[in-house]
Amino acid sequence: MKHSIGVDIGSTKISFVLLEEKRVILSQKILTPKNKKEIIKSIKENIDKLRKDIPKQKIEGVGIGVAGPLDEERSIVLNPPNLKSLTNCPLAKIIGKNLGLKTKMENDAKCFTLAEAIIGEGKRYDTVLGLTLGSGIGGGLVFKNANGKWQIWKGVFGGAGEVGHMTIKFDGAKCTCGSIGCFENYASEKFFDISPIELEKRAKKGEKYAKTSYQEFGRNLGIGLANLINILDPEIIVIGGGIAKAWPLFLNATRNEIKKRVLSLHSKKSVKIKVSKLGDLAGAIGAALLLENYD
Amino acid sequence: MKHSIGVDIGSTKISFVLLEEKRVILSQKILTPKNKKEIIKSIKENIDKLRKDIPKQKIEGVGIGVAGPLDEERSIVLNPPNLKSLTNCPLAKIIGKNLGLKTKMENDAKCFTLAEAIIGEGKRYDTVLGLTLGSGIGGGLVFKNANGKWQIWKGVFGGAGEVGHMTIKFDGAKCTCGSIGCFENYASEKFFDISPIELEKRAKKGEKYAKTSYQEFGRNLGIGLANLINILDPEIIVIGGGIAKAWPLFLNATRNEIKKRVLSLHSKKSVKIKVSKLGDLAGAIGAALLLENYD
Repeated sequence: MKHSIGVDIGSTKISFVLLEEKRVILSQKILTPKNKKEIIKSIKENIDKLRKDIPKQKIEGVGIGVAGPLDEERSIVLNPPNLKSLTNCPLAKIIGKNLGLKTKMENDAKCFTLAEAIIGEGKRYDTVLGLTLGSGIGGGLVFKNANGKWQIWKGVFGGAGEVGHMTIKFDGAKCTCGSIGCFENYASEKFFDISPIELEKRAKKGEKYAKTSYQEFGRNLGIGLANLINILDPEIIVIGGGIAKAWPLFLNATRNEIKKRVLSLHSKKSVKIKVSKLGDLAGAIGAALLLENYD
Repeated sequence: MKHSIGVDIGSTKISFVLLEEKRVILSQKILTPKNKKEIIKSIKENIDKLRKDIPKQKIEGVGIGVAGPLDEERSIVLNPPNLKSLTNCPLAKIIGKNLGLKTKMENDAKCFTLAEAIIGEGKRYDTVLGLTLGSGIGGGLVFKNANGKWQIWKGVFGGAGEVGHMTIKFDGAKCTCGSIGCFENYASEKFFDISPIELEKRAKKGEKYAKTSYQEFGRNLGIGLANLINILDPEIIVIGGGIAKAWPLFLNATRNEIKKRVLSLHSKKSVKIKVSKLGDLAGAIGAALLLENYD
């Protein structure tokens, strides 16, 4: 039996899974500690708990998903705008050394997309674009390569998939990254002036402002997705992250905006826009799947 | 000796090349006729002239580059905003039948990028993004695949690379495609209120308005390129098309804007931004190279 461990480090929580043959057999969630030292310590402790009944030689390794960007070798976290405590941290090396296990690290949204491609909404398709809507927007592109194997589009210098920092309004609002008019200012938690969960409740009660906010959010999401379709023309886009759960409030607006802004008639008619059904653990599952045999 | 023919159909002119072992041995340029029937007739006549001294069995075929988007099978031109006379035309089939030669068709900007990747600025790199700045903006992504062969990122439904219709200002000016705030309204001929060649002359004479216009054009170009770097993280971006020749007037502004808007520190430091040296025939050369052995 093949086992692998996945860790998904978000700005608010860290998720852990133990996979056996691509199925989750154990999982755990904790709040993200404030500083680097405590993050590393709690990752070690929680992985040790998860693996205590599995002999070390039966564990393929640990996959780590973390907010990017990462360096080319996927060993250092560079400058994540939404997780600044890990800036320039050689995380994969530290955790591998602490645990005595092989590690692989990848951007969290790419892990999410890998999970969706291998066992989620994307599994019947060949080109899967994943977006995580949370405190920012992450993106991943996973495709069947020339050998028929799943491959993550990593980019050359480690910076691909930073779709949240695509400019959609060049004279717009300033972003935490220092740039202006970034997509994630209009279609992540940053767009809302109150908690999106609170706003979702209010919208479901019929409160007009809340409903209108989600509609505008949906249109903004559609603008960014249309850009990605015009550039990449994927077969399916899977959206995940906390806000995706509120999809009945915004997804029609998103689809309408895509129809307005995608050039290719075939693409706008045929591309699938789906919401993740893997839930909160998708990122950690995808991290564990980094240990699987893919190119 | 292997021969192949390339045709690049632009909104103002059509270029033809005859390649022998990847080298141009003959070329021809004509003005683009007004209607479909005349376009097809003049393509046949000019190819017949080009190939008259080469036995048919020594010609690999004809590659056609044309403004996209195309259908999935690359046989039909769908709805090109800047070449409306070819809307829904099954061009590859018609030309193949007329000439009795194998044909391959691809979006013109992808042909440009293929030429840059195989024999141009991109030949020492593995991931090449090409942009053509003309009456609109076309884009192509060419990369070494898992087998080490050059591959064009085509997208699933034929719509990839339409970077000119990426929204960079969602409440901006209306585009010929019907959408709003498209990149090509800010960084192609559409941006200038007089001919870019005339403006280039004036800028070189020191006229302030002309110089400022090109600076603003350069910043706009940088916004779109930064988006593409944040999404794709290519190793090199090669710009071509008529306006690219005026690069001394705008390329510094472009590079500065990229530095402001790309998230990954490694990507913004390492990505190369180059101007095509293949000249006006790059698209036709790339079209002919479609017949070469690549995935």
